[in-house]
Amino acid sequence: MINHYQITLPSYSRGFHLITHHIEQGLPNLPAEAVVQIFIKHTSASISINENADASVRDDMETFINYLVPERLALYTHTYEGDDDMPAHIKAALIGNHVSIPVINGHLALGTWQGIYLGEHRNHGGNRRLIVTVQS
Amino acid sequence: MINHYQITLPSYSRGFHLITHHIEQGLPNLPAEAVVQIFIKHTSASISINENADASVRDDMETFINYLVPERLALYTHTYEGDDDMPAHIKAALIGNHVSIPVINGHLALGTWQGIYLGEHRNHGGNRRLIVTVQS
Amino acid sequence: MINHYQITLPSYSRGFHLITHHIEQGLPNLPAEAVVQIFIKHTSASISINENADASVRDDMETFINYLVPERLALYTHTYEGDDDMPAHIKAALIGNHVSIPVINGHLALGTWQGIYLGEHRNHGGNRRLIVTVQS
Repeated sequence: MINHYQITLPSYSRGFHLITHHIEQGLPNLPAEAVVQIFIKHTSASISINENADASVRDDMETFINYLVPERLALYTHTYEGDDDMPAHIKAALIGNHVSIPVINGHLALGTWQGIYLGEHRNHGGNRRLIVTVQS
Repeated sequence: MINHYQITLPSYSRGFHLITHHIEQGLPNLPAEAVVQIFIKHTSASISINENADASVRDDMETFINYLVPERLALYTHTYEGDDDMPAHIKAALIGNHVSIPVINGHLALGTWQGIYLGEHRNHGGNRRLIVTVQS
Repeated sequence: MINHYQITLPSYSRGFHLITHHIEQGLPNLPAEAVVQIFIKHTSASISINENADASVRDDMETFINYLVPERLALYTHTYEGDDDMPAHIKAALIGNHVSIPVINGHLALGTWQGIYLGEHRNHGGNRRLIVTVQS
């Protein structure tokens, strides 16, 4: 059985944000055994799994990814959508736009320290749309 | 229900290429609700989702990934398959070798600006083989 | 049908390691047609697919990722868990924490040169726990 749920996130500032609670609240009771995929319908924001406890990890992820993928490199030619646009496409490609998580006993079987991250890579990305798919 | 389809891509030059049409043409009519996975059977080419409209994004992805993962770094020891080989393995590991896309109402539920990219990271990669899996 | 299998890996040294045999040995006979997902329940180790033949690829992956994500960058603020901790979160985010592989005729349909990699990004990561999900 396959069920899709569309979730629209609130508008987030540029950076990494823990969205596990948005996913859990956007879904009905989960089947006992399943797989849940979270897919973002954008190419300038990312979905990943990372540390859920200390906000300094999200801060450092943002600082590091800006260091790794700087704005205004001379090599960019796709520049007409703003300095943050081409770097956002690159960051999303490196980190990925979807994750898939096992469901065991009706709950996301995340490790103790795992949470779901939105990486908002635009300065003003607005509301991001997700498709959450439950396969059971 | 699980169905696998083997698709062989035409030989592409090094760089990023939009292959959404190859995937759609290589599949029969899709079930109303499904998940499609595109998996590449190689370790020196990548599959990702990125901007589908402006070829300058593909160009900049290629220029940037060559800047991020340069050839002929002194640290490489795996050099006997050519200067482009070890960087190709690294690029494929960073970007990924498969994507999974929801199917809603019989169509890939990609965002407006999303397309499927082949990243050909070898100078002469030849025909790349994909396994496309439809779960419904 | 969805079946989950929990596999605990032996403790590995920091670096990239081929774990295809651990996955195959940890699973019962596979269905003829299926999809297998390997998900790691940690945020400082990664799962990826890469070259399975030459150990120099694993060595160079480790050398390169340390060059790409150095320890002790001034920008890190999440430092109280050791110099290897924040870089490990970044490496895991870039490479990913799960892969999904088609099963055809009862076997993982990996390409000739593809194997499953554990990226152990901590100096002393200990035993890593995987959830392997078979969808058929």
